Amino acid sequence: MFQPMPFAGDPLDRVSNERHDESWVQEQLRDSKSRFLPLWRLQAPCADGDEPRLVWTDGSALSHLEDGGQTALLGLLDGVAHFVLDVSELEEPVTALGFQNTSYSDVRALATRIPAPEAGILAHARSVLDWHRRHGFCPNCGSKTESFEGGSVRKCPACNASHFPRTAPVVIMLVWRGERCLLGKRAGAAGNRYSCLAGYMDQGETIEAAVRREVSEEAGLEVDEVRYFASQPWPFPSTLMIGCFAHAASDEIEVDAQEIEAARWFSRDEIARVLVGPDANLDVTIPERVAIAHHLIKAWSESGPAGAK
Amino acid sequence: MFQPMPFAGDPLDRVSNERHDESWVQEQLRDSKSRFLPLWRLQAPCADGDEPRLVWTDGSALSHLEDGGQTALLGLLDGVAHFVLDVSELEEPVTALGFQNTSYSDVRALATRIPAPEAGILAHARSVLDWHRRHGFCPNCGSKTESFEGGSVRKCPACNASHFPRTAPVVIMLVWRGERCLLGKRAGAAGNRYSCLAGYMDQGETIEAAVRREVSEEAGLEVDEVRYFASQPWPFPSTLMIGCFAHAASDEIEVDAQEIEAARWFSRDEIARVLVGPDANLDVTIPERVAIAHHLIKAWSESGPAGAK
Repeated sequence: MFQPMPFAGDPLDRVSNERHDESWVQEQLRDSKSRFLPLWRLQAPCADGDEPRLVWTDGSALSHLEDGGQTALLGLLDGVAHFVLDVSELEEPVTALGFQNTSYSDVRALATRIPAPEAGILAHARSVLDWHRRHGFCPNCGSKTESFEGGSVRKCPACNASHFPRTAPVVIMLVWRGERCLLGKRAGAAGNRYSCLAGYMDQGETIEAAVRREVSEEAGLEVDEVRYFASQPWPFPSTLMIGCFAHAASDEIEVDAQEIEAARWFSRDEIARVLVGPDANLDVTIPERVAIAHHLIKAWSESGPAGAK
Repeated sequence: MFQPMPFAGDPLDRVSNERHDESWVQEQLRDSKSRFLPLWRLQAPCADGDEPRLVWTDGSALSHLEDGGQTALLGLLDGVAHFVLDVSELEEPVTALGFQNTSYSDVRALATRIPAPEAGILAHARSVLDWHRRHGFCPNCGSKTESFEGGSVRKCPACNASHFPRTAPVVIMLVWRGERCLLGKRAGAAGNRYSCLAGYMDQGETIEAAVRREVSEEAGLEVDEVRYFASQPWPFPSTLMIGCFAHAASDEIEVDAQEIEAARWFSRDEIARVLVGPDANLDVTIPERVAIAHHLIKAWSESGPAGAK
């Protein structure tokens, strides 16, 4: 078995029932033991050093912010409430919050540097805060919405609609046939980076239908068998990556230039080489292990077609 | 193999690239060959008789509506564009549209009565129209949004945000251990209806983590192995049902009364009996075959634990 997928290790108890109780949530916000992860413009605070860790603060951070700042309850660990807190309004968060030896970094860059459980918490934290930042108004009537239940729902006082944090399902698939797999180069992608085909699911689709549609659209290939592999939360801003193996019914591809710039078949030997690192003879890179694409490619490479199918 | 899952048979080509071209979409709207499915308050028109079919109309229906009514492009079949059209503003759609031997019905009731490809189209049609009806305003800034690309996106003229039709992933799982499976009775469910446990996925979760969380919350059970089974689009309003088998690590359950009223283990023999129909001695029903829960239960019943695992 592979290591937990990056961003998939969240150890918190999400307390789906307790969080409905507003007074319980307010108690947790005031509890001096509660921990707050202060995200700044969607970046995360990380302790400098050889073993980087997320930097948490206590509820005193709320006093630096107008109206206390947007919070969202992430969950409990050993009875201690963990919240994310938006400190984007601060000019210099490190100084204002009294942090030392701490830097703010992009969430993606931290994912494989910090311990897996922290990366899991961070995925949830970034997604929920980004959602609050862009859902201050009711899509049904246009009124301002308010955050309830520890940030797990926004409600509209005008039309009474409830709005929940959004997760968009995406299919990502390794297309394979015999001893080769198909990777594509996304239009505008930097360098010579080849990856799995992927795309947002539509309404009214199954996972398998979305895989077939995307492969047909991007590479002009018919897929017969689809096999689920694993899933990954991807917090940019909030997608569920659904990884599958897709067996191609033929070899001939027809690339759709609007979606991808190029696509080509790679042999098992070529994949084994690019997995090790940059290969001068091949001049191709694949996604790093933060992405589920890496794990799909690696699993196919290691288990062979029988295993993949 | 089982029959296609209800709502999963959409045969239309969704023309993801062509639909970006507004003038192409406008041409399709004016084309006399184009077909329009006129949904009325989210109900669908169906021809009466022994072999019920959806009833389509041509573009002349648009003239009965102010501003032409909300449309959304569903896709192409044999080169003919298929749209859904919202005729909710009409008082009596059957009369106004000149239909004969036609009734409007709930989409759920039609799902297994009409041919599978039509049920698939209908799932897409209901989801996208419902989304337009409840997303007329920008969640980012509160301004009115406008429909573009044949109804596959709404854009905000004030802040330039694009908003896409929403699909919410839901995990639904048959929990099993040895020769028994666990079904729950949802709080407030009518009759003595037992079904699979299920729940909306949270942000920052994998499919497997969501299965474990829901089973723990609802039944107090730890799940070890999770195996993906199949998926189904469920257009009420727009969820992706992700069906899994979940193997319980123990037998003892502790039901959370907020989520479900009761839960109990059923033997393989009991499941075989309720699958046939109402059983006087058991006094329990399970979901009908429109729901993926039915197919999860049936697959476990037929293939046994080895097959399920």
